[in-house]
Amino acid sequence: MTERAAVSRADLERRRPTEVRQVIREGRWTGNSKRLALGCEQANIAILPERHAFDFMRFCQRNPKPLPLIDVTDPGDPEPALSAPGADIRTDVPAYRVYRDGEAVEDLTDIRHLWRDDHVAFLTGCNLSVDQVMLEAGIPLPHLIREEAWPSQYVSSIRCRPAGVFHGPQVVSMRPIPETLLVKVIGITGRFPRSHGAPLHVGDPAGIGIEDLARIDWGKPNAVGPGEVPVFWACGITAQAVARAVRIPEMITHKPGHMFVTDLPVIDPTRDAA
Amino acid sequence: MTERAAVSRADLERRRPTEVRQVIREGRWTGNSKRLALGCEQANIAILPERHAFDFMRFCQRNPKPLPLIDVTDPGDPEPALSAPGADIRTDVPAYRVYRDGEAVEDLTDIRHLWRDDHVAFLTGCNLSVDQVMLEAGIPLPHLIREEAWPSQYVSSIRCRPAGVFHGPQVVSMRPIPETLLVKVIGITGRFPRSHGAPLHVGDPAGIGIEDLARIDWGKPNAVGPGEVPVFWACGITAQAVARAVRIPEMITHKPGHMFVTDLPVIDPTRDAA
Repeated sequence: MTERAAVSRADLERRRPTEVRQVIREGRWTGNSKRLALGCEQANIAILPERHAFDFMRFCQRNPKPLPLIDVTDPGDPEPALSAPGADIRTDVPAYRVYRDGEAVEDLTDIRHLWRDDHVAFLTGCNLSVDQVMLEAGIPLPHLIREEAWPSQYVSSIRCRPAGVFHGPQVVSMRPIPETLLVKVIGITGRFPRSHGAPLHVGDPAGIGIEDLARIDWGKPNAVGPGEVPVFWACGITAQAVARAVRIPEMITHKPGHMFVTDLPVIDPTRDAA
Repeated sequence: MTERAAVSRADLERRRPTEVRQVIREGRWTGNSKRLALGCEQANIAILPERHAFDFMRFCQRNPKPLPLIDVTDPGDPEPALSAPGADIRTDVPAYRVYRDGEAVEDLTDIRHLWRDDHVAFLTGCNLSVDQVMLEAGIPLPHLIREEAWPSQYVSSIRCRPAGVFHGPQVVSMRPIPETLLVKVIGITGRFPRSHGAPLHVGDPAGIGIEDLARIDWGKPNAVGPGEVPVFWACGITAQAVARAVRIPEMITHKPGHMFVTDLPVIDPTRDAA
């Protein structure tokens, strides 16, 4: 076996998504996907047996803010052909989280041994895709700059619309935003509905059932400084909160923050014209 | 039984969608849905047994130009709760067309006797929703003015992306547009992806496999006059062409042109913010 060179986040920022996925497939990157293949849409993944797939697809269609559908594979086919031709959803995610009966039981970097002919993979949009757009527009987002930082994620009191066996709370991600930039932030993110779009809520966390911003459910704590306001977007981790809520027998997801990198450009003026 | 007053298209133009659906449910309107409940999205419908529903939903997700998903009902539930709460998809469409083994076998105005517990209704976007926007923007669309006129619809050589058992050609609708208004028409319709968005093709019909504009597959012939260019949009009748192509055992659709009227506004500045 040949020795493989170490790879850094800086190396992966400017690589093409096919190259990034190859590095991940080889086990050379198992970290979070922040800034990987900048400019490409990243996706949450949820792998379910076919018997739950139609329910889950309706669930996504009815809840497009937390779960904007990007791609759905054919049963047993590990290639997300619409968003990442040639990719393999069993190996190309930096880290996976396996749920059994609604409990997270295992984190893995390869799930080929778990894959079955009745498995269907759902890819849904992700905030990380737009964070870079915001940063370049002058919005300070420390989690894109500081390696150890991350948005704060919470289970909110906003309920999803149910579909079949699926129901549960919406998860939100919070970024502190200077009040002077609030209109700009809402305007920018509203243009990216495939990446959760405009915020769900701005201001008092109690308004969406969050009693204490320090008590995060996922991510990292973020202090809200003077002149800043907490801004909450829908978050794809909603699928994992729903897996818990309904005690779903089996769901394989990405480990939060460790997203699948698609070939789709975040900014695509030809999307509708194509 | 009390005598019911006759109802005209002009009566129904300014009515709310719930009122229009009630009139249709009572059997008082079985005509096409042109201009009904102006300003509300109209939808193509395709009703399939659950065993084909997940395949068809992936098929729609992969072909958003002809089949932009608006709503999908739960198996056995005739209410499109997302787009038209309180409606009944078995009675609220002006006319239905029933396909068996890929052949259109019957047109009906009520399908309650055919409805089963395993039936799923798919609602997908429609060009009629945006035609009025174009008309108000100064685009001459004679089919909105003249009662007997209609866009011309053709089976094209553009193929759908397959999903499960579903594959087949895309159907397009053609409107002759003055060349001087072409940029405007493309710009306007591109803003309505849920209603097929920007055109698929402009100009020479042979470029998308249409040899003779006079040989329509659905709709009415439309002469392309001097200074006009034929403009082709994706069309929801694609589902019916696909039913034929795969000889699907059972699909119940609307009769072309006889769409389901939803509560959703065509122009909704709050859609993403909601």
